[in-house]
Amino acid sequence: MKLHGYFRSSAAWRVRIALNLKSLKVDHLARHLRKGEQRAADYLTCNPQGLVPTLEQDDGTMLTQSLAIIEWLDETHPTPPLLPRDPLARAKVRAFAQAIACDTHPVQNLKVLNRLRELGMAEPAVTAWAAWVNTEGLGACEKLISNEPGPFCFGAAPSLADLCLVPQLGNARRFGVDVSAYPRLLRAEAAAKAMPAFADATPDRQPDAE
Amino acid sequence: MKLHGYFRSSAAWRVRIALNLKSLKVDHLARHLRKGEQRAADYLTCNPQGLVPTLEQDDGTMLTQSLAIIEWLDETHPTPPLLPRDPLARAKVRAFAQAIACDTHPVQNLKVLNRLRELGMAEPAVTAWAAWVNTEGLGACEKLISNEPGPFCFGAAPSLADLCLVPQLGNARRFGVDVSAYPRLLRAEAAAKAMPAFADATPDRQPDAE
Repeated sequence: MKLHGYFRSSAAWRVRIALNLKSLKVDHLARHLRKGEQRAADYLTCNPQGLVPTLEQDDGTMLTQSLAIIEWLDETHPTPPLLPRDPLARAKVRAFAQAIACDTHPVQNLKVLNRLRELGMAEPAVTAWAAWVNTEGLGACEKLISNEPGPFCFGAAPSLADLCLVPQLGNARRFGVDVSAYPRLLRAEAAAKAMPAFADATPDRQPDAE
Repeated sequence: MKLHGYFRSSAAWRVRIALNLKSLKVDHLARHLRKGEQRAADYLTCNPQGLVPTLEQDDGTMLTQSLAIIEWLDETHPTPPLLPRDPLARAKVRAFAQAIACDTHPVQNLKVLNRLRELGMAEPAVTAWAAWVNTEGLGACEKLISNEPGPFCFGAAPSLADLCLVPQLGNARRFGVDVSAYPRLLRAEAAAKAMPAFADATPDRQPDAE
């Protein structure tokens, strides 16, 4: 399989962690988002949204959207599981993941920030926008798991929630957010970062890192 | 069960359709988003994000995030199914749903539009922002199912994809988008709207409709 991604994309980063946890090797194809390579005609046939990641199967089938890709990986390669078995526990993990993947990340991704720039927003205000989005999202996430024992977001092993959290904390720091306000999230991040599957997926360790 | 929602919220609308398709009756509690009721202290203990919907179980357990709620409903009340059985087919349905629920709806929801207003954006530009987001999202969605036979987004029965599509088309029209550019989406919407489960979930049929 081939993963079309970008070292800094937090959505691609989530999928890299999942592939590592499942011990799946894929070819990594970089689409340079800042150079607009995700809008090239050949890529839009893979992913009509012009976003990364896309997981390309050996038969040419294209899977898009990071959470959909990760659930597919979990259904076809169930060990180790990325979701609990109990429906209620699954719903809690998915809700946490979606608080990041729906309500946080897409509101501060490169496409939205570039649109704000095109509309005349000055760079400090663009950064403040991204910081606001991260503060709102991570503040809610901190509360969502405040009563969960940990050390990961939900229990003793990483789940889809941690796959979304770790890259989003990376974004938050990049936009100058003081993440010390989120001690429970940082505890989950520390547990995750001690695992090679997470450590090997960070942007600075990717072949296209700058 | 109780559904905390708002007649015009497209995320709550998705869950209303799912409940109707599963023939599940719940109490509907309106949280008036334009009056800020979703930020009341008692509601933030239910949903730390201050968003609707929240599905409150009889034992007080709170489920948040529309897609997580719908997947929980599908796992606990499997008939009729809202996702196919085949993992690859499930991934395609989820990716379509997430193209709306992650990359479209949250970038044009009330919270984001209000932030743009607070930052000094004039009302026509706010509407243009929301129209841009819908045009980008629905344009990609049209391509994602262009080769699917239909009449629904994916096949002969409604799925999670249709639950996301129908409310988003409602949003798009509200922001002045010319949806005639999306004939395949409109075909799926027409099939859906012929079903009472979809017809009874529209904003104008809710007790809190204005």
